[in-house]
Amino acid sequence: MFYGGDYNPEQWPEPVWREDLALMRAAGVTVVTVGVFAWSVLEPSPGRYAFGWLDTVLDGLAGAGIRVALATPTAAPPPWFSRRHPETLPVGPDGIRRSPGSRDTYCASAPAYRAAARRLAGALAERYRRHPALALWRVHNEYGTTCHCDLTADAFRGWLERRYGSLDALNDAWTTTFWSQRYGDWAEILPPRTTQYLPNPAQVLDFRRFTSDELLDAYREQRDVLRTVAPGVPVTTNFVLGDWVPVDHLRWSREVDLVAVDHYPAESGPAAEEEAAFLADLARGWALDGTGRPDWLLMETAPNLVYTRGRMHAKEPGRMTRHALAAVARGSRGAMFFQWRAPRGGAEVFHAAMVPHAGAETRVHREAAALGATLARTAELLDAAVEARVAVGFHEPSQWALDATVLPSSAVDHRTEARLAHRALARGGLTCDVVGGLDGLSRYAVLVLPCWYLLTDEQSATLAGWVTGGGRLVATYLTGVADDRARVHPGGRAGALRELLGVRLEEVHPLAEGAGRALSGGASGSLWSETVHLTGADATIRYEDGRPAVTRHRVGSGEAWYLSTRLDDEAYVALLGAVAEGAGVLPRRPPPPAGVEVVRRTRDGRGWLVAINHGERPYDLRADGLDLLTGEAVTAGDPLRPGAAVVVREGAGP
Amino acid sequence: MFYGGDYNPEQWPEPVWREDLALMRAAGVTVVTVGVFAWSVLEPSPGRYAFGWLDTVLDGLAGAGIRVALATPTAAPPPWFSRRHPETLPVGPDGIRRSPGSRDTYCASAPAYRAAARRLAGALAERYRRHPALALWRVHNEYGTTCHCDLTADAFRGWLERRYGSLDALNDAWTTTFWSQRYGDWAEILPPRTTQYLPNPAQVLDFRRFTSDELLDAYREQRDVLRTVAPGVPVTTNFVLGDWVPVDHLRWSREVDLVAVDHYPAESGPAAEEEAAFLADLARGWALDGTGRPDWLLMETAPNLVYTRGRMHAKEPGRMTRHALAAVARGSRGAMFFQWRAPRGGAEVFHAAMVPHAGAETRVHREAAALGATLARTAELLDAAVEARVAVGFHEPSQWALDATVLPSSAVDHRTEARLAHRALARGGLTCDVVGGLDGLSRYAVLVLPCWYLLTDEQSATLAGWVTGGGRLVATYLTGVADDRARVHPGGRAGALRELLGVRLEEVHPLAEGAGRALSGGASGSLWSETVHLTGADATIRYEDGRPAVTRHRVGSGEAWYLSTRLDDEAYVALLGAVAEGAGVLPRRPPPPAGVEVVRRTRDGRGWLVAINHGERPYDLRADGLDLLTGEAVTAGDPLRPGAAVVVREGAGP
Amino acid sequence: MFYGGDYNPEQWPEPVWREDLALMRAAGVTVVTVGVFAWSVLEPSPGRYAFGWLDTVLDGLAGAGIRVALATPTAAPPPWFSRRHPETLPVGPDGIRRSPGSRDTYCASAPAYRAAARRLAGALAERYRRHPALALWRVHNEYGTTCHCDLTADAFRGWLERRYGSLDALNDAWTTTFWSQRYGDWAEILPPRTTQYLPNPAQVLDFRRFTSDELLDAYREQRDVLRTVAPGVPVTTNFVLGDWVPVDHLRWSREVDLVAVDHYPAESGPAAEEEAAFLADLARGWALDGTGRPDWLLMETAPNLVYTRGRMHAKEPGRMTRHALAAVARGSRGAMFFQWRAPRGGAEVFHAAMVPHAGAETRVHREAAALGATLARTAELLDAAVEARVAVGFHEPSQWALDATVLPSSAVDHRTEARLAHRALARGGLTCDVVGGLDGLSRYAVLVLPCWYLLTDEQSATLAGWVTGGGRLVATYLTGVADDRARVHPGGRAGALRELLGVRLEEVHPLAEGAGRALSGGASGSLWSETVHLTGADATIRYEDGRPAVTRHRVGSGEAWYLSTRLDDEAYVALLGAVAEGAGVLPRRPPPPAGVEVVRRTRDGRGWLVAINHGERPYDLRADGLDLLTGEAVTAGDPLRPGAAVVVREGAGP
Repeated sequence: MFYGGDYNPEQWPEPVWREDLALMRAAGVTVVTVGVFAWSVLEPSPGRYAFGWLDTVLDGLAGAGIRVALATPTAAPPPWFSRRHPETLPVGPDGIRRSPGSRDTYCASAPAYRAAARRLAGALAERYRRHPALALWRVHNEYGTTCHCDLTADAFRGWLERRYGSLDALNDAWTTTFWSQRYGDWAEILPPRTTQYLPNPAQVLDFRRFTSDELLDAYREQRDVLRTVAPGVPVTTNFVLGDWVPVDHLRWSREVDLVAVDHYPAESGPAAEEEAAFLADLARGWALDGTGRPDWLLMETAPNLVYTRGRMHAKEPGRMTRHALAAVARGSRGAMFFQWRAPRGGAEVFHAAMVPHAGAETRVHREAAALGATLARTAELLDAAVEARVAVGFHEPSQWALDATVLPSSAVDHRTEARLAHRALARGGLTCDVVGGLDGLSRYAVLVLPCWYLLTDEQSATLAGWVTGGGRLVATYLTGVADDRARVHPGGRAGALRELLGVRLEEVHPLAEGAGRALSGGASGSLWSETVHLTGADATIRYEDGRPAVTRHRVGSGEAWYLSTRLDDEAYVALLGAVAEGAGVLPRRPPPPAGVEVVRRTRDGRGWLVAINHGERPYDLRADGLDLLTGEAVTAGDPLRPGAAVVVREGAGP
Repeated sequence: MFYGGDYNPEQWPEPVWREDLALMRAAGVTVVTVGVFAWSVLEPSPGRYAFGWLDTVLDGLAGAGIRVALATPTAAPPPWFSRRHPETLPVGPDGIRRSPGSRDTYCASAPAYRAAARRLAGALAERYRRHPALALWRVHNEYGTTCHCDLTADAFRGWLERRYGSLDALNDAWTTTFWSQRYGDWAEILPPRTTQYLPNPAQVLDFRRFTSDELLDAYREQRDVLRTVAPGVPVTTNFVLGDWVPVDHLRWSREVDLVAVDHYPAESGPAAEEEAAFLADLARGWALDGTGRPDWLLMETAPNLVYTRGRMHAKEPGRMTRHALAAVARGSRGAMFFQWRAPRGGAEVFHAAMVPHAGAETRVHREAAALGATLARTAELLDAAVEARVAVGFHEPSQWALDATVLPSSAVDHRTEARLAHRALARGGLTCDVVGGLDGLSRYAVLVLPCWYLLTDEQSATLAGWVTGGGRLVATYLTGVADDRARVHPGGRAGALRELLGVRLEEVHPLAEGAGRALSGGASGSLWSETVHLTGADATIRYEDGRPAVTRHRVGSGEAWYLSTRLDDEAYVALLGAVAEGAGVLPRRPPPPAGVEVVRRTRDGRGWLVAINHGERPYDLRADGLDLLTGEAVTAGDPLRPGAAVVVREGAGP
Repeated sequence: MFYGGDYNPEQWPEPVWREDLALMRAAGVTVVTVGVFAWSVLEPSPGRYAFGWLDTVLDGLAGAGIRVALATPTAAPPPWFSRRHPETLPVGPDGIRRSPGSRDTYCASAPAYRAAARRLAGALAERYRRHPALALWRVHNEYGTTCHCDLTADAFRGWLERRYGSLDALNDAWTTTFWSQRYGDWAEILPPRTTQYLPNPAQVLDFRRFTSDELLDAYREQRDVLRTVAPGVPVTTNFVLGDWVPVDHLRWSREVDLVAVDHYPAESGPAAEEEAAFLADLARGWALDGTGRPDWLLMETAPNLVYTRGRMHAKEPGRMTRHALAAVARGSRGAMFFQWRAPRGGAEVFHAAMVPHAGAETRVHREAAALGATLARTAELLDAAVEARVAVGFHEPSQWALDATVLPSSAVDHRTEARLAHRALARGGLTCDVVGGLDGLSRYAVLVLPCWYLLTDEQSATLAGWVTGGGRLVATYLTGVADDRARVHPGGRAGALRELLGVRLEEVHPLAEGAGRALSGGASGSLWSETVHLTGADATIRYEDGRPAVTRHRVGSGEAWYLSTRLDDEAYVALLGAVAEGAGVLPRRPPPPAGVEVVRRTRDGRGWLVAINHGERPYDLRADGLDLLTGEAVTAGDPLRPGAAVVVREGAGP
């Protein structure tokens, strides 16, 4: 199991390193990430490497039995590099070149930057490829820098030329007849820089796709150098989610040896666990798509604090442990933290750490230190499948397209709708995968597509085939509105899906914040509503005026559902539960109460049940077997006390 | 009657054109606007015109009996143009040149842009001057781009030199002794770019005036080319209102053959009708000033949606029709919409259309299609005068001066105050003109000047003469504070008007949002209050402490009123009603209830009464005659049901 | 006594000057500030001075017995200067050079600007050094411009080199190992310009310190020219407070002959008096530190209006007078206003003035005019000490460091906490000095350090020595967290102070806005809370869960208190009162009620008591003696009516 964190010895004198090693050993740390932002100390001047200190650090770690995720430090070029190559500094949409002085001050399209990154990766690989501590290459850090410079513009044009082949195809894809934007020469095309009024959404979408691919190229170059020089060492990079991150993680998952994600939640209350569960199921979805296996790695999270709305929140005692186990339950190969030791200075001086400013004699360090042993006991979960016959779609390009478009309601957000679907399933006792593509539908009996805006006719056909064969599709409003160029499908919303859904969608009626519409059966809808005509489907829930709100179309042996509004929580849970049950997927009955997380893993006919009680009341376990955490037998009906967790190997015997 | 909309066949393949023609004919469309953003398809590369498709479109329209407002496409230069002439891209106040990629990416002071615009207008005129479809030239689209580049700076200096003649005059006008801004050379003068602290309000005001004039020059150049090449075809451009629009529409009204306005309301509830009525009366005010006739054209409005506070609102069934009739009642020569067919892509993909994404089999298209016949029945209203003996002043330079000044309260807004005065008159049953200048006072018995900030001594004298001769002036706080250079008149607020008003204004006491001051007679004031001394006037309403709040000064056979606070609705309606009655202007008694709009038109001794019931209760009509919409007789006392409208030709006979 | 204001005759024709002189004389004006923004009229073109008008003005003033604070006009370079020396225009953090058109458009690091400033100061000094009106040089106006240009970058590097000596020392101080920011060459260092993500707080802090020093150099150059050419004339510059002001006023106080401050309050209600009292006690603290004497000068304040939250508030009748007396009570040598006569135009056209737009026949002018005589009667207070044995710390670099750091709560603000401590003392009847440094501790029995974030080990030792010797230290959360490079002290918050305080600080728990934690004794805490361990101290107030909230550590003959939360008002007043009483400092018993300000001055064994009743109820005076304002005897128990003030020379006799 991975247990450890980001380790930055370069910030400390050597005596502290010895204390670090002692504390790590005591805590059972297995892996630390080293070198993430170390460029300026690894290469203090052009071409002059200073590996000595890192040798010492790695030797010390190896001696202590601790392995290393060795980072390439390319996310933060040093001052000398920016001064020597000012063209590598990123440029904002306003055309202003950013100054050095922070991190991530690079342009992935700048040849000098790319060459330096390859060179550094090569130098590190040469030096450490046989080092006993080396367990994993971590390339860069949280790829996510968008640049709008002229070098980027050139690269964008090249990308577009490869994508579209001809200007006619591009003009068609971007609807450049709107507002006189027809291009007559590739050289006329620019990134979506600050302009006079609304930009072209197709251009914005493609630029985000391009940026993802350009960063991916930068990653692949380093990866390929590392693989060549140090064959056999797995390579990854840590993903991060955020509005500003121009990365299509589904595509990236296919290029890493292990999907690794950072999780800095935006919620501090009970929603934090829901948010973490969503991210974990999403990471697993990426892993399944990319590597075919369910395991991934929670590579960074904060050991104590959550920063939200201008304030840091301490995690209550035990919460860090439960979060780590929850990640493991959903497929993570362990839990790693940012960071090992709190820094004395710098931009993140108050970021939480496993060794806080107040030192090792602290609650946080004691709790972190105890986690090592706990995680070690869960090792047999590795590679066990997570039992999930339901999937929720989360499609980053759809989010980007919605972000780029002036919608009938600015409150619509694919991310939020995906989270709500995931939450409704969880509350109904259904574990799901969160999937970014439609390639693995055969794994699932039920698929929820919430505001999955972009859908090609081919994808609609895929969905139709899957439904006809028995699948249950639940599509919400704004699903399948546009093709992959953000062009609205002819004939109205839902495009090629309309036939499958058996509806005709006429007008939209977004609802004000706080406003709702009463629905049949005592339910209510919010955010959005529509005028829906039935063309084959039947209405299962209606608006107060009798018009269809939720519809079901039976097609072949499957069903295609359409939700024209955002259902209230209770109705959403009930609806998704009923759809799943119709598909033969039985939710856990009764569903676990709020705050209790239950995940089942299976491998080779064996089962494990992980149950975690984040709530305030005891929960009656529904499993017999051995609790790996305590080594004691567990019987169905045993109470799981608030704050506690079990990892039950089901059945008798060891 | 104009009935139609913006038509963009360049976005569609030819089979759709044929469907368009059939649908237009069925709907009774009379005029469509073509070519607005077609530059990049009309001139796909420098100097190479591609008129073929437009020939086909215009021939098709002509064949269907539909005429064309042919636009010059100069509001959206194509990519090749911006690349070839980067100096034509507009520059923000921060000195950053805007990128192409939207629309309106032009600088009106750039010679290359101006030359291209003239050339394009000439080419279109040469090609289509004798085309049977051609009904009207629509130059450009919604002029409104402010630029701060060096070419603009040069033009600004030239404009200032013509305006002031000498640097001494400019230094005096701009009070450049404040903060050491005295200019010693014309070359030192710049547009008001981003500076260290507060800008000079006089400079900001003059720059906005200059921008209006510069855009007007650009318009006039195109107009003159069109008139020369295609004599006899009327020319206009469509006005749009908005904070950002640097256009003094009063001056522009004198340069167009037909005042054409776009209306995209900011309100979706009942205030939408009040907002539309204000704009219509304002457009008519401009028309009266510019062409001497009351008729104008509602050139663009949305057939269905209103976008406000991040959300699109559908217009309820019938509302589009009522809005169109309301515009016609107030002088519009018809109703045109943006746009004919909803686009597949581009920045405004969800903008409402007469043919929505969902196609012609939709409520919206059916309602739009029925409107053609309805409007046709109102044709005899054309050129009939709107009965209005009251006027409200709306002075765009005053708004600009207030915007440019750090006021005692940032909540003061000329636009809002003008709307409130208009609404109070309407609620009291008084139709008014909204006027931008003081040249036509003889038309009116009552004039309300709400926060009309800029007033020269000559204008004060004009007002004094008009009042002495019997006029009733109602001036609110912040009226006449400054001269036309935004210099406060010596001796305190209201300047040369003080004598006419018979008051001395000492201190101001702006009120907090939500706060009010009790007034005599049970009224209340908000937003503003003052210490007013009587120097001839008498106080008709007093503050709780007995000091004057509203005053009346009898001068000659007229009266000059002063309002030192914003009266509550009821008191404002009562006051303006009483003032009008004193002037012999009898409001409709009883005033129509909320939501009922009544306008009377007259021509050659005949009268028409338009009544529109936007409300929820029946309204007893007060007219006898023939309802043009139904062809049936109407008798006073007949109920006008909610949602209905009549256009009654008063009296008997055909 | 100084009584007068900013006088800008250059904005008016000569006839107005004569009226000004008559009005000033009638009002008893003693000093006016002349020339502040007069560069463009004093030097209308390069090198050509136009002193004639200023000669006339100064002669007129001298003839009227009015003296002059003669300003160097360097805060607003004229248009010709900016055009000729564009490199002197300031550059924002985004790299954009600001345009002229306002004021303060200078870069203090630009040689051309510095040379011009010296030249101007010299020219003014040469011309007027013997003018009988000349009383004081006022250099510049409200120094406070931050620039990020390349000239500034050069100067910053020089400053850093002088400060740190070596790059290693700088790299250590700035913790440049964080995020790969290690510098290998001085030339790599830049101002903190707009960068990709979070900046380095140590860099931001040092840049602010540098800016303060750079502006101070600019001031000193002018001062030295003035002293050389016009020896014997005192020199000052007017300080202004504000988030944006990069000035460490403590250091500046040592360079002026008289601490002069501008006060434009942000509060209009009763908090305005508390805010003014804080600023006055702070100005006196600077004066004591810089000149060793308690007197300072309120150089600018508004005679009538306060601008806050978008609205100007009139000062109620009498309030301007009370504010002026309150300043004098706390050490000001008089009261001066911005400005004498309201301008006709310019950016501050509605700013209050002693002669408003409405002229001299106004309440405001009458009140201002009466103030001259009132102030004259208080002259014997000059140089009398303000009785204050308690001090509150206000440390501008700590504020800057907090501003530059991502804190556990963004609501923490040193400024606010210092104001709250000052208010709690005042409400408890304790007058205090507000001190910026720890050099003069021997003056005080009690010192409150509220969020005094930066503290060196040497300073901690100073504090420990002072406490051991009997001092009472009250430190709040976030005091002494970091050293003077913003590096967190090893071992946890409070650093070297921890031993003195006798606590170990483990975790922080910032509280949400509006949230509170119950404390023992019925008190409550807000904003912040902590896990505090006692290591010598005892807990005097505890959180509801029994953990320490407020602690006291007896050390030697003193006490060191720690507050881990923001106490509610009542508890704070009680606590500080008790601490003071323990130190033998008896607060005024009973404390004056809300709205009554009482300050005692002493000199050579004599005492004066100033009492000002801003409140709404009579207050029973607690002094016997002669009221200097009325010349009448006062006896303890006499009521001080609402709105009134007395300056009582204690005891019998003249």
